[in-house]
Parts: sequence; structure tokens; C-alpha cells
Amino acid sequence: MAVYTEVNDDDLAQFIASYGLGDLLSYKGIAEGVENTNYLVHASAGSYILTLYEKRVAHEDLPFFLGLMEHLASNGLSCPTPVRDNEGRMLRELSGRPAALITFLEGIWVRRPRAHHCAAVGECLARLHLIGRDFEMERANGLSLAGWRALQTSIGDAADQVMPNLGQLISSEMTALEDAWPDDLPKGVVHADFFPDNVFFLGEQISGVIDFYFACNDCFAYDLAICLNAWCFESDREFNLTKANALLRAYNSVRKLTKAEFEALPVLARGAALRFLLTRAYDWLHTSEDAFVKPHDPMAYIHRLRFHQSVRSAREYGLEEVV
Amino acid sequence: MAVYTEVNDDDLAQFIASYGLGDLLSYKGIAEGVENTNYLVHASAGSYILTLYEKRVAHEDLPFFLGLMEHLASNGLSCPTPVRDNEGRMLRELSGRPAALITFLEGIWVRRPRAHHCAAVGECLARLHLIGRDFEMERANGLSLAGWRALQTSIGDAADQVMPNLGQLISSEMTALEDAWPDDLPKGVVHADFFPDNVFFLGEQISGVIDFYFACNDCFAYDLAICLNAWCFESDREFNLTKANALLRAYNSVRKLTKAEFEALPVLARGAALRFLLTRAYDWLHTSEDAFVKPHDPMAYIHRLRFHQSVRSAREYGLEEVV
Repeated sequence: MAVYTEVNDDDLAQFIASYGLGDLLSYKGIAEGVENTNYLVHASAGSYILTLYEKRVAHEDLPFFLGLMEHLASNGLSCPTPVRDNEGRMLRELSGRPAALITFLEGIWVRRPRAHHCAAVGECLARLHLIGRDFEMERANGLSLAGWRALQTSIGDAADQVMPNLGQLISSEMTALEDAWPDDLPKGVVHADFFPDNVFFLGEQISGVIDFYFACNDCFAYDLAICLNAWCFESDREFNLTKANALLRAYNSVRKLTKAEFEALPVLARGAALRFLLTRAYDWLHTSEDAFVKPHDPMAYIHRLRFHQSVRSAREYGLEEVV
Repeated sequence: MAVYTEVNDDDLAQFIASYGLGDLLSYKGIAEGVENTNYLVHASAGSYILTLYEKRVAHEDLPFFLGLMEHLASNGLSCPTPVRDNEGRMLRELSGRPAALITFLEGIWVRRPRAHHCAAVGECLARLHLIGRDFEMERANGLSLAGWRALQTSIGDAADQVMPNLGQLISSEMTALEDAWPDDLPKGVVHADFFPDNVFFLGEQISGVIDFYFACNDCFAYDLAICLNAWCFESDREFNLTKANALLRAYNSVRKLTKAEFEALPVLARGAALRFLLTRAYDWLHTSEDAFVKPHDPMAYIHRLRFHQSVRSAREYGLEEVV
């Protein structure tokens, strides 16, 4: 939520000219994206997002992210598309940073999703998974089991500063998940951060999906479990069965879940809850009080984790058994 | 440089609907404006800036600022215009803050102004002064002599933390200015913050002026002296006579300076330098190291002040004596 890198007007005018998009009309640093610097650029040809990649994003992964966006957009999933410059390049350099110019997507993220939003989200995620199958690049998920263990170690005893006995809760959950984690589920490209602020709506329809900077190769159903956590709990932390039912049914109607995926859903949901609990607890403990970017509250994910621990079958998420 | 207040999507959609501008298409918090929260809004009818006024801006002054922008824009000065809602109101409330929707102005502020930019700026400032004469509301300048004295007192001995002996420099300059400050110069509405980041260009032409939140009634020539400080010094702090000459001649060609204004220019320039030195020193001393908004360096204005102290006549700014 910040502009880390300033861009000079002359440099940007020259940069925009090399894309053949007419004149630079205006640019404003926008308060979106915790990791990178983003400008909303108006040029004669339209609106664009200029992203300067800061150090927290591994630069070697940029061709994967940009290539994936181009692949998805050109196969009918509405998402920002990297623009290629006059020499065909998607990835450039500006103000000493790797930089990309990306089409601007109109749309608004929904602060209080309702069940019909969840249905649209389930359908969209399934389409993303299907379209992503033809994408040829690969990227490992740095925030899967091994990554969680590393995070847990680095948080250490400090977890108890977030909540008494949180360290113990995380430790026993880690062990349980390492035992139970399925490794034979259908895999492919997953978004891995399909939260409400990354899905834009215009009216009742999804206008597009943004922020592919966690995308990687992993189990499709794990991505669905992340969604379940992100969309189907109320602000009072209660699970909303109507929303989960809408989300899962819509997903299943586009990409049918296998029996193994169906059965693994509760453990995947626990894993997804632990993953966000860990990163939030880490950020919570490592953000100074004066920092501008306020970390997300880890408590919401402690509650989600406990809820999923109590779930015995995916039927409790409102989905009928798949055959 | 921050989004202090979050706006809910439903609230904003309803807000935009009450202006008859079609549908809300997107909104992004932008990293501009230290005092207020600004969103760049796309609606069916075009682009707008939504400003939520935070506590640092005196709410009773808002009708003056908005009224002035409307007055200037409707009389041919290109600047953002507050949009009136279906009931004719310019000032509304949103997310618990006073709020205004303002037309979006394309254009780019010039990071490294050249002499021709300074000429355009001088001409534009003079036009603003002329058009502002018919504006009927008034607002006192809170950052004139009395305001500086109050700032000096509140900074106190801490000034020497900025630079050794700065307290003494400020104190003797305050006394000198209180003795020499002219009180019979032509007055009217002044912008009072006509810095490069508040003047947009498209190509060689000014596309508009923004940020009227320091505007007030004061001497026209003092506003010109602020400009001289803001536009006619190099980043190595050297005075640029060519730029000053271009700026002053262009101003004088649109609104002819009186003999008294001409003669007062050096003392007004000292006052303008002291005014920004004081606010910058204050911010410098009161901003925590972790704060996201980095304060401007006061040193640049210490150098400007010393330069103007050495000036004996406005001719040294490159302007021939006016008759």
C-alpha cells in the first residue's frame, strides 16, 4: 500500500512512447499492492497499470507471472494483460526496477461478498484452473508444507505474543498436516491468493481477476480451500454455509472435483488456514507500530483453523458427495 | 501521501449515483496529498478525484476552497472543478468525512522545470490573480507573519537540531521581516503553494493547476515570491537567473507589477523562504523516522533565505524596473 519508487516524468514519457500507446497524459501512484509500486497511467490509448517490482518479489519469477497473465487473458479469462512494447518485450526496466505495463481492468472488489458473489468466484476459479492447464511454465509453491515449517521456525516462541499457546497450536497442527497432507491430487496452475480484493466485479458479474504474484503449481483443490477460507466466513468469524455451498457447487459445475479432492477438502482447508495464519502472525510480529501498512489480524485465521479442525467431511461445507 | 480513510464499495456506488455520472467503474486510493485521502474514480461519465477531508484541513474553510476552484474554472483557468450533485451540493459526506467529487485533470507535473515552464507558470499565476479578483469569499492567510512567529515559538531551541545556529538565523530574520514587511501592496486571492507538483503540463502547455488548500487572501506579489522560490532554484540550490527572468517577465506581461511590488520583491522572497523553512523544519522535527511520508529537507530553504538576504533589488531577479 505504498509508492516505494518514484518515477521521473521524462523517463515515463519515453517509456510509454516505446509501446506505441500515444502520449502520456497522467500518472498517479496508487495505494495498492504491499509488495510492489503501482502507478495508474492514462495514455492516449487508454488506462494502464505500471508496476515496478520491488525487492520482495523474486525477479526470476516475473516471466512466469507475466506469461501466465498473458496466457489466461488470451484464453478468455478476464485479467490484466501485460502489454508488449514495440520490440515485443513484456518485462522492461524503469527507475532501476524491473517494470511492466499492464492493461487496466475496470471493476470494484466487494467488501461484503454475498452468496451470489461466491458462486461467481467458484466458477471463475475453476475456469482459471482449466485454462491454466495449457500454460507451459512452472513455479513451485514457496508457501506449501515446507515453507510453513520454515515460517513456523522463524516465528518460534514469539507466536505466543499473538495469542497465549499459539505456538503449541501451530506446532501440533504442522505435525498433523505433514502426516495427512495428500500428494496425489490433480495439480496445475493455482492463483493461491484468490481473496475478495483480488476479484473485481461490475454489477453482479466478475470483471476480472488481479494479482497473480503468488500463482504457482499446486493442487487445484488447495486453491479452492484458500477461497473457502477467504470468502465464506463472516466478519464475526462465523462460517457461512450458504456461501460455501454456492462457491463449491459453482466450482464443481465447471471443473468436477474428484472423490480424492472431495475427501481431502477439510485437511486442505486446515492447511490453507494455517498458511495465512503463519504469514499474518509473522507480519504482525515484524511490523513496527508506526509502519504505514497495517498487518492483517491473525486471529481470524486462528478461528478458521479451529473450525476446520472440527470438520469431519466436506459435506459439512455444503457440498454433496461427488461420485 | 496516503489513504487515511477506506471507502466502502456500496457507499461509493450510491454516492456516485447521486451525481448522475453513470455507474461506478473503479476506484483506487492514490498516493497524493499529505493532508487528505484521495481516490481516482472511473465512472461511466469520466474520471474524477474523490477527496475525503481529514482532520488537518479546517472544515470551515472547505466552502472557500471548493468555491474558488469552481469560480476559477468557470472563468477560464484550467483547474479541477468540484462536481455538484443532483441537489446542487459540492460538499458532501462519505465514510464519516467531508467529501467532494472533483473533475480529474490530465497532465503531468514537471520534475525538472526549464525556463519555458517558468514562463508558463508566471503567466498562469497572473491569470489566477486576475480571475480571482471577482471571487467573493475571503480567507485569511494562517501562514503569514503572525503564523510564522507562532511556528517559530513552537519550534523553539529544537531548530538547532536541523542546523547549528538555525534558531538565531530564524529569530533575527523574523524581526527583520516584521520591521520591513509591506502592508500596502495589491491584494486578492493567492494560491500560496504554486509548486511544480501543483502545476500540470501536457507537452509545453499548462493543462491545469491543482491543490487550492492553502489558497487565501494575501499580497499578489507574495504569491509570486513563493513561485520564485519554488521554480527558480536548481537542485544544487543555485539561483537560476534565466528562469526567474522568464517567470517574472511572463507574470508582468499579464498583470503589471506596481512600483511598490517591484521594490518589495526581495523582502517578500525572504518571507516566502522563511515560511517554507519554518514548516519544513517543523515537519522535519516532528516526523518519526518510520513515518511513511518523508518530510521535505529544510536545508534548501535555508540556502534560499540567505540568497535573498543578499539581494539588494528586484533587478537581481532579472526583471527590469517597472514604471
